[in-house]
Amino acid sequence: MKIQIINGPNLNLLGVREKSIYGSADFETYLAQLRNRYPNINIEYYQSNTEGDIINKLHEVGFSYHGIVINAGAYTHTSIAIADAIAAITVPVIEVHISNVYKREEFRHHSMLACNCKGVIAGFGMDSYRLGIENLISE
Amino acid sequence: MKIQIINGPNLNLLGVREKSIYGSADFETYLAQLRNRYPNINIEYYQSNTEGDIINKLHEVGFSYHGIVINAGAYTHTSIAIADAIAAITVPVIEVHISNVYKREEFRHHSMLACNCKGVIAGFGMDSYRLGIENLISE
Amino acid sequence: MKIQIINGPNLNLLGVREKSIYGSADFETYLAQLRNRYPNINIEYYQSNTEGDIINKLHEVGFSYHGIVINAGAYTHTSIAIADAIAAITVPVIEVHISNVYKREEFRHHSMLACNCKGVIAGFGMDSYRLGIENLISE
Amino acid sequence: MKIQIINGPNLNLLGVREKSIYGSADFETYLAQLRNRYPNINIEYYQSNTEGDIINKLHEVGFSYHGIVINAGAYTHTSIAIADAIAAITVPVIEVHISNVYKREEFRHHSMLACNCKGVIAGFGMDSYRLGIENLISE
Amino acid sequence: MKIQIINGPNLNLLGVREKSIYGSADFETYLAQLRNRYPNINIEYYQSNTEGDIINKLHEVGFSYHGIVINAGAYTHTSIAIADAIAAITVPVIEVHISNVYKREEFRHHSMLACNCKGVIAGFGMDSYRLGIENLISE
Amino acid sequence: MKIQIINGPNLNLLGVREKSIYGSADFETYLAQLRNRYPNINIEYYQSNTEGDIINKLHEVGFSYHGIVINAGAYTHTSIAIADAIAAITVPVIEVHISNVYKREEFRHHSMLACNCKGVIAGFGMDSYRLGIENLISE
Amino acid sequence: MKIQIINGPNLNLLGVREKSIYGSADFETYLAQLRNRYPNINIEYYQSNTEGDIINKLHEVGFSYHGIVINAGAYTHTSIAIADAIAAITVPVIEVHISNVYKREEFRHHSMLACNCKGVIAGFGMDSYRLGIENLISE
Amino acid sequence: MKIQIINGPNLNLLGVREKSIYGSADFETYLAQLRNRYPNINIEYYQSNTEGDIINKLHEVGFSYHGIVINAGAYTHTSIAIADAIAAITVPVIEVHISNVYKREEFRHHSMLACNCKGVIAGFGMDSYRLGIENLISE
Amino acid sequence: MKIQIINGPNLNLLGVREKSIYGSADFETYLAQLRNRYPNINIEYYQSNTEGDIINKLHEVGFSYHGIVINAGAYTHTSIAIADAIAAITVPVIEVHISNVYKREEFRHHSMLACNCKGVIAGFGMDSYRLGIENLISE
Amino acid sequence: MKIQIINGPNLNLLGVREKSIYGSADFETYLAQLRNRYPNINIEYYQSNTEGDIINKLHEVGFSYHGIVINAGAYTHTSIAIADAIAAITVPVIEVHISNVYKREEFRHHSMLACNCKGVIAGFGMDSYRLGIENLISE
Amino acid sequence: MKIQIINGPNLNLLGVREKSIYGSADFETYLAQLRNRYPNINIEYYQSNTEGDIINKLHEVGFSYHGIVINAGAYTHTSIAIADAIAAITVPVIEVHISNVYKREEFRHHSMLACNCKGVIAGFGMDSYRLGIENLISE
Amino acid sequence: MKIQIINGPNLNLLGVREKSIYGSADFETYLAQLRNRYPNINIEYYQSNTEGDIINKLHEVGFSYHGIVINAGAYTHTSIAIADAIAAITVPVIEVHISNVYKREEFRHHSMLACNCKGVIAGFGMDSYRLGIENLISE
Repeated sequence: MKIQIINGPNLNLLGVREKSIYGSADFETYLAQLRNRYPNINIEYYQSNTEGDIINKLHEVGFSYHGIVINAGAYTHTSIAIADAIAAITVPVIEVHISNVYKREEFRHHSMLACNCKGVIAGFGMDSYRLGIENLISE
Repeated sequence: MKIQIINGPNLNLLGVREKSIYGSADFETYLAQLRNRYPNINIEYYQSNTEGDIINKLHEVGFSYHGIVINAGAYTHTSIAIADAIAAITVPVIEVHISNVYKREEFRHHSMLACNCKGVIAGFGMDSYRLGIENLISE
Repeated sequence: MKIQIINGPNLNLLGVREKSIYGSADFETYLAQLRNRYPNINIEYYQSNTEGDIINKLHEVGFSYHGIVINAGAYTHTSIAIADAIAAITVPVIEVHISNVYKREEFRHHSMLACNCKGVIAGFGMDSYRLGIENLISE
Repeated sequence: MKIQIINGPNLNLLGVREKSIYGSADFETYLAQLRNRYPNINIEYYQSNTEGDIINKLHEVGFSYHGIVINAGAYTHTSIAIADAIAAITVPVIEVHISNVYKREEFRHHSMLACNCKGVIAGFGMDSYRLGIENLISE
Repeated sequence: MKIQIINGPNLNLLGVREKSIYGSADFETYLAQLRNRYPNINIEYYQSNTEGDIINKLHEVGFSYHGIVINAGAYTHTSIAIADAIAAITVPVIEVHISNVYKREEFRHHSMLACNCKGVIAGFGMDSYRLGIENLISE
Repeated sequence: MKIQIINGPNLNLLGVREKSIYGSADFETYLAQLRNRYPNINIEYYQSNTEGDIINKLHEVGFSYHGIVINAGAYTHTSIAIADAIAAITVPVIEVHISNVYKREEFRHHSMLACNCKGVIAGFGMDSYRLGIENLISE
Repeated sequence: MKIQIINGPNLNLLGVREKSIYGSADFETYLAQLRNRYPNINIEYYQSNTEGDIINKLHEVGFSYHGIVINAGAYTHTSIAIADAIAAITVPVIEVHISNVYKREEFRHHSMLACNCKGVIAGFGMDSYRLGIENLISE
Repeated sequence: MKIQIINGPNLNLLGVREKSIYGSADFETYLAQLRNRYPNINIEYYQSNTEGDIINKLHEVGFSYHGIVINAGAYTHTSIAIADAIAAITVPVIEVHISNVYKREEFRHHSMLACNCKGVIAGFGMDSYRLGIENLISE
Repeated sequence: MKIQIINGPNLNLLGVREKSIYGSADFETYLAQLRNRYPNINIEYYQSNTEGDIINKLHEVGFSYHGIVINAGAYTHTSIAIADAIAAITVPVIEVHISNVYKREEFRHHSMLACNCKGVIAGFGMDSYRLGIENLISE
Repeated sequence: MKIQIINGPNLNLLGVREKSIYGSADFETYLAQLRNRYPNINIEYYQSNTEGDIINKLHEVGFSYHGIVINAGAYTHTSIAIADAIAAITVPVIEVHISNVYKREEFRHHSMLACNCKGVIAGFGMDSYRLGIENLISE
Repeated sequence: MKIQIINGPNLNLLGVREKSIYGSADFETYLAQLRNRYPNINIEYYQSNTEGDIINKLHEVGFSYHGIVINAGAYTHTSIAIADAIAAITVPVIEVHISNVYKREEFRHHSMLACNCKGVIAGFGMDSYRLGIENLISE
Repeated sequence: MKIQIINGPNLNLLGVREKSIYGSADFETYLAQLRNRYPNINIEYYQSNTEGDIINKLHEVGFSYHGIVINAGAYTHTSIAIADAIAAITVPVIEVHISNVYKREEFRHHSMLACNCKGVIAGFGMDSYRLGIENLISE
């Protein structure tokens, strides 16, 4: 059972960037914990700052994997192209956010992607990713 | 460890109401399964169609329980009063929705409550409640 | 054949409140006339100032009566919860207004309920209720 | 007692046009039934696709008839000129719609005419016209 | 001379809730001081978290008391039903707020009630209630 | 020197329609006075309730007359087609209104035509037409 | 194979009106060229400045012709009535514009008709009509 | 018979400023011509770039003169204070503009003053002032 | 103890201007009564129609007086500059209005100043000033 | 004569993605047909999911080719950068869409690119590309 | 070479007012440093809290100086009159701000003046003035 | 002392693209002049048309350089992702524009980046870059 995690722009700086919002852990450390917790699941990880690369990755895994957990970062709020890619593929996609985006700037309250996703999980820190995986494997 | 689930207006009709959106299971059946899955947690349940009753319940449990999982139904989108109640209490509150509200009417895309909650989980059917509890007990 | 009339907030003051808009007749007097005119129909009447009570009444009668005539007063313009209740039940609901709401403040021009009702009748004074019943019994 | 029914653009295609919305009956058949039901009332009928013609007809009958029942079709939502004509005449005008316009596109939710009419009746199929006449003759 | 104070949702938590905004005094303590200061006035107090209850109270006292001082809390910004109740009664109503609502979230800047009240007093902490009473008794 | 006056919808009812807004004089009486005052100018008059007829008249006189004074009534606020006709012709066009449109409903504050006209004169009763002619003959 | 071209308001002035936008050719000259190019197709032509006439023509040919190419001019942006007529008929309709409307005033960027048409072609001068015919005959 | 002309900000630069919009004549030259044309009328002139000064002048002459012709320049679009001053005085005020403001930036299309004035005259160059006087003396 | 009252534009016309809104008393008469009522307080008064003068006065007294009661009239709704002046000084400022601004035009519902003031008092006629002073001296 | 076709994000999935909207043909098959139909024209093809790559391609061919036919997919609605690239080059660009974008979500109704293109062709399936080429070669 | 610096409302309080935003230096001290740095340039300084005075100063120097550096404070966001003055004069004007206005309230993000200025410099503290001068003298 | 200049989409065409807006100099020529003027500063230059590449470059230099001068071109107005990158790094970033963006299309008036930058400099041609460097080195 393969699950793809996709992280969007600036999430490569987790643990470095604005720690009061995102915490001080980097994603690689968290990923290792996650893989330990779900040893029977193949959790793959991809990060890019480029919109087109994220679309390419969605196309690549979007017809064969068990599920996708995506934190598209800033592209969440602006990218019709990623939204279209999610609509075009057949694998279920779950949108996650580390911070509670509804406590932040108004432009972060709206997601272009959510209407094409299975569901949305926001505000639980790194645990948002785990909850997404929890749901994918419970089906 | 006590966790309160609060369901808002019309959610007493689950299993009866619009099955294509909400599924055919009633909440009591689901609640029994949930309690079986988490035998060590005291999961209490409250439903009301009245905004003021939901506020009263939040006040009652909001200073002593371990957490609250709320699906405020239509009041999610209109009730500043419930939002204020969540801000006024000290127990963490998680907003959940059965359906993916972002696929539905525009007025369901905005939550008055989310900015005062710990986080939001939407679109996973009954499993949204469980994911909320998962997060509350993992802290 | 049972038909339920539901009146929302402040309509208990009919005949007392703002007579230039609503006329000087109280609803009970009108109701007696209406029952006289339709002796073979069981016309039940319910009024409440509380949103949740109106939802409860809709749930109670909404799966078995012949029809419902609702004047939700101010809740017409704000209550997604009542709109959801109307969508959830199976009995046809007709929205009525005593005054011509389109001649009044802008916020009274929009109804949250109308899209879930069979139809809307506004502006005919007390006769709006009768026209609703006329339609329900002509089917 | 003369009552004028005025139908606006595209309503000449009733029974031909979009039957899922407007039904399969043409208006002439319905009109005959209506006249049978109210044998003592002189029900006149006029249809035009031209805004100016509808204004002319309103001017012609608007100072002497007992009442007017108008379904202005698409002009309902755009014509200040017809709204002004209704304000300028002295005969009471009732706005009717076959479909429940509040279930359809957003631009059909607003009527330019309603604030100048006695009242509005929408959503009852052909019966909307009869309810309008019912009210006019009950005064 | 009877004056009714009405407090809306969450104001039962005064002294407990968000002290940086509302201060650390509970309302009962303040009420006692107020009654001491105006020994010749009968100051009655009512609090409810339910919109419909507040309407009921307004109806009950709204035709016979000397005046009403209302802090409708969150319902200030959303309740057309309470606004209609204030318009329907004959006793003068003064809208008060403890905090300066214009310093807070944008949705707290607009009051649905103000246009039906005699006046508005906001931002003076508990003293807002006293200023309202000052005005009512000075007429 | 030929000047064309064009009156739009409902202006044929001047002297009949809403006298508190438009006065009790009919346009023909006023026209006779106007022709007396300017005996050397050929003042032609046209009125229609149909948008297309007004466009046709603009095309007919718009390349040869000395000027046009138009009161397009309600079409002022909605007709891009008349605005385009004014832009397409070469004769200067002056927009006039009898009432001060800026004191009336918001939708009467905006003119689709004004940006294609030489100028606008509004609020002077019948004298608005004369002022337009005054300007045209002073060039 | 009969194809109807319909031109809306002010397009009778082509070659006369604003040549910098519309060019200096009149439509009749272009029509002759078009008929020469497609000798086996019966290309009929209709122009009117009146919204209702355009609706009448759509009704007349809209159930039997092979296709319709319409340049509704200014009515493109305002006429729900023409949009309804296009939805009511069964013949495919192609919306065309001579100028690139997206380079012009903001109100020309939106078409009321487009959502009911087969497609839209804008900005190619007279060639827009030919491209519409090209598509209709290629099916 | 005394008539006051008031010019607002930057109109002291007429003849110097943006000649393509305002022409090359200065106002003093025009004023002399105007006084020659109406020898029996006492035409007074005041110009200021300060909002408060314009209000002061309106107060000073606004209860005794025959009429006021005001070109408030940029304050036309922003000054509620001048609008209130016009409402407060009893002398009729006519708003004039040299340029056709409806051909210019969107923010110049709306006048704060117009609803309190007798009427509006815009787009006739210096002749706008004369037309205003024409109307004032014709009463 | 020095308290400064500042009145903005057109308030010099109190007792003269629109008596149905503002009453028939002039401010000087009221001021004398107020000084009689509070003999131990030094109540200074300043009125100007010029925005800049009001800012100057705020700067002058805003670092040393006990408090300021300001009725900025129309500038309340438009002046960021006065709002900035209030934010820049250290003396508490109370915004007052004679009329209930929320019953009047929409543009009077919003105050630019309120968020920088201690509080707002509106709708109590001249008594609004006294209530402001009451609060200032009770601290 | 070289013509460049550029396809934007997700159009590499044609024939795979949402067949009810885009049909079941892949673009390569269509491209072969197109090249067969126009054997004398050099039709080059480029597809990318990355905004910057599309800009690079426009720069590369935009000063020397005969024309460009672009279907920028989702970037049509959001990319000022691609719009600027089209404005910066000298080769004429035609915007095409397979589906009738005006029948779909509101955000697809607006194109950032159209005002910089020669024209727009939308809704004709794959034939939209051919119509663009037809126009380019007819000049 | 004469350069005029103009400071608008409340900037006379620099060093006194809100030091966390504007710093603790007063402008006179900074001005002396600036004059030392550019000994060959005649830097004149003017400050006023009155919109009209700023316009007067712009008129006075706006046809003869080398350049103007203006920090119009709050008037930046509201004054069409100052914007018109800048458009009316011939000397280049540079808009500067001490604080980064884009980090502050939304209403400070928009400048009425910027479109008539040579350029805008914001956010560099007092150094914003110097950068403006740097540019003016480098031409 | 290392300073990074970053240019966004289409700025590689400087000197080629729209010379009336951007001038006829290419950036490399200007860069050489700039390096000559500041021989002690290491000015590095990067240009890309891809949003993700710009983010990568910001991450690369954003924790160690002395400052960054960025002209993000069209991405200025749409890219939350670049704005987030600027917020995530620690080096001060100055936003510059060659043209005065406030004189151009409305969508160029708003910057997504400005609120995360130290300041903004716009409208001075190539000199905007130098002014940014001037400020960075003066600290």
